[in-house]
Amino acid sequence: MARVIVDVMLKPEILDAQGQAIARALPRLGFSGVSAVRQGKRFEVEINGPADETALSDVRKMAETLLANTVIEDYTVTVES
Amino acid sequence: MARVIVDVMLKPEILDAQGQAIARALPRLGFSGVSAVRQGKRFEVEINGPADETALSDVRKMAETLLANTVIEDYTVTVES
Repeated sequence: MARVIVDVMLKPEILDAQGQAIARALPRLGFSGVSAVRQGKRFEVEINGPADETALSDVRKMAETLLANTVIEDYTVTVES
Repeated sequence: MARVIVDVMLKPEILDAQGQAIARALPRLGFSGVSAVRQGKRFEVEINGPADETALSDVRKMAETLLANTVIEDYTVTVES
């Protein structure tokens, strides 16, 4: 059993309206010093067996086909330590 | 300038319908070996200045008041290395 994390974020050139809304709300709530916020998705994938290269390759394929829209989103795959 | 990451996930005891839907879709798409998926949110917060204890304390307050619903969600704050 291992846990693999897939983080999916909008590509930098894509407008992130949710992140901008958060960044604009912060000063009203009394928080200063934040220049930008971007919002994305985090997936925790529990795999049977070890997080070896085969398993990570499978998770990358899942990210490409199901978890991320690679036209507008980038993803990263990491093993939770 | 530093980037602080806030990960927000449903508490373990809260049903994650989106994660379950993904986990159930995987075998149909030809992926085996995944026992569970949980979906959450990831926020990348760009702060002016260093990610010192004061800044992290501010980000934790943001997470409590704006980014997470602490009744049903847990959050973690990490500095991006």
